[in-house]
Amino acid sequence: MPYEFKLTRRVEFAETDMAGIVHFANFFRMMEATEHAFFRSLGFTIHGHESGTTTGWPRVSATCDYRAPLKFEEEVEIHLLVAEVRSRSIRYQFIFRKADDGTEVARGQLAAVCATVDKITGKLAPVHIPEAVRAMITPAPRELLGTHAPARSPSSASASTPGA
Amino acid sequence: MPYEFKLTRRVEFAETDMAGIVHFANFFRMMEATEHAFFRSLGFTIHGHESGTTTGWPRVSATCDYRAPLKFEEEVEIHLLVAEVRSRSIRYQFIFRKADDGTEVARGQLAAVCATVDKITGKLAPVHIPEAVRAMITPAPRELLGTHAPARSPSSASASTPGA
Amino acid sequence: MPYEFKLTRRVEFAETDMAGIVHFANFFRMMEATEHAFFRSLGFTIHGHESGTTTGWPRVSATCDYRAPLKFEEEVEIHLLVAEVRSRSIRYQFIFRKADDGTEVARGQLAAVCATVDKITGKLAPVHIPEAVRAMITPAPRELLGTHAPARSPSSASASTPGA
Amino acid sequence: MPYEFKLTRRVEFAETDMAGIVHFANFFRMMEATEHAFFRSLGFTIHGHESGTTTGWPRVSATCDYRAPLKFEEEVEIHLLVAEVRSRSIRYQFIFRKADDGTEVARGQLAAVCATVDKITGKLAPVHIPEAVRAMITPAPRELLGTHAPARSPSSASASTPGA
Repeated sequence: MPYEFKLTRRVEFAETDMAGIVHFANFFRMMEATEHAFFRSLGFTIHGHESGTTTGWPRVSATCDYRAPLKFEEEVEIHLLVAEVRSRSIRYQFIFRKADDGTEVARGQLAAVCATVDKITGKLAPVHIPEAVRAMITPAPRELLGTHAPARSPSSASASTPGA
Repeated sequence: MPYEFKLTRRVEFAETDMAGIVHFANFFRMMEATEHAFFRSLGFTIHGHESGTTTGWPRVSATCDYRAPLKFEEEVEIHLLVAEVRSRSIRYQFIFRKADDGTEVARGQLAAVCATVDKITGKLAPVHIPEAVRAMITPAPRELLGTHAPARSPSSASASTPGA
Repeated sequence: MPYEFKLTRRVEFAETDMAGIVHFANFFRMMEATEHAFFRSLGFTIHGHESGTTTGWPRVSATCDYRAPLKFEEEVEIHLLVAEVRSRSIRYQFIFRKADDGTEVARGQLAAVCATVDKITGKLAPVHIPEAVRAMITPAPRELLGTHAPARSPSSASASTPGA
Repeated sequence: MPYEFKLTRRVEFAETDMAGIVHFANFFRMMEATEHAFFRSLGFTIHGHESGTTTGWPRVSATCDYRAPLKFEEEVEIHLLVAEVRSRSIRYQFIFRKADDGTEVARGQLAAVCATVDKITGKLAPVHIPEAVRAMITPAPRELLGTHAPARSPSSASASTPGA
């Protein structure tokens, strides 16, 4: 069962800032793009409509540690690893490396909860991960996951997101 | 000596995503905008040029925990607290609350290192925080800071950013 | 009846690019922010829900001519003028000036059509502008509107970029 | 000599807004990404440093006409055509089409001037297009270029938005 995915992107001009490097907030957009490509690779979409219900994956927490700057037109490989799968949430770990020499650029985590989204009111209600999705996603072997503690695990976050 | 700052913003349309709420990566842009406004309030700029040298504050780590969705045209108050001041880095804590009813929306942290920036090569070199800045910024009293552990303190990060 | 509005903003770090100036696409976000603030000033919202229907203002066209770079932390005043009001669409003209010395930075236009938005399918259907809105918005006097054609051609633009 | 280029992209979540479609300002980022990929395909970079001088292509004007909404995960083909080459500037035309059925989504233009960029002061100074670049880029045949005027006025746009 799949527990990892790699996406390679080239840095775009609009992702840089006046310091001449990729703006730090854009690493979170790159994590998300990788998560979504991972879902597509399994035949799913991260934001689906079925029988009038919209299901999405709002974030519980996001974290990134920066090791080296990333510059315009550099290619970066984003390596997603599934760190934890719970009944209503998934936690991912990401490692960013320069495609040409493998330099580690950054390392991050996302924890997302499966939820129905009311597009009019913006209300989110956590739900069980669909069986079809759960059957396809599994945590990566422990030895592949980083040894540093998670910034915030969905378990501690669950206190503020009842039922997550 | 100042250890906190509050910035109030109204959510813009371009900050929302198709889930009808503020995209999670934009919380990091809001943290940064608050950090920069804090610096301006002290008479400094976060990205200055002096005698041919550009000094900036590249990020060592960034983290955010999401509690409630934030929607278009809602006003949000971002409360910055200085969590730690070291010789070459500062760590901030942020709490996002809806301006109308005080609902806590999110809570985050940024750790930034003072560095010279070579705009041609993109190279960053950590330096001591200028005395004028250090003299103005102090950590908030412990009882004001959140009790949850930092996602990643600059001390652990310093291992990967030599001299930070 | 109102036909103009002014919004002042300070350039944020995340709006700049590696050329050290505001990325050109962000001028369109600033135009939109001004349009929305204009609507709020009249007691309306640009993206409303009523009796299960969502009404929005999808864009028909957008254009911007750039005269001078805009930099980090500079204050810019965005001056909106209503250029044309039709049964289902409105056209706005915008002039960007530096707040400190009045230097013209850019000049743009947006044409938007009033439409119902199906948030599930993404379908847009043009509708008549609500009477309450139409009653409040009127075109600016002709002498206030720019004399240049609705959207500058690069050939006319070359006049302001000597030698281009 | 090359006068066209095609780039295919998949719409990312962070490019959408609460109307459920790609935010209109992001079409300008897509035009730019295509322009830069065109340059790379010729062996150039759009933002280069040589002997201490940074050369870039600041925009003189940008325009886009929107025909149909573009949604999350849809693939869009962006077709760049060189519309005009002058001594210090280039004008491009872009057509956006859905990759699956060829539906035209939008059509735009960018005019950019070749300039040296002072990264400290943000000053831009137009210069002649380097000979190596000029030798490689040529205007597309007239019959390939859109017959509509360089930038659509909203009045002509109304033809494609029945009843606007």
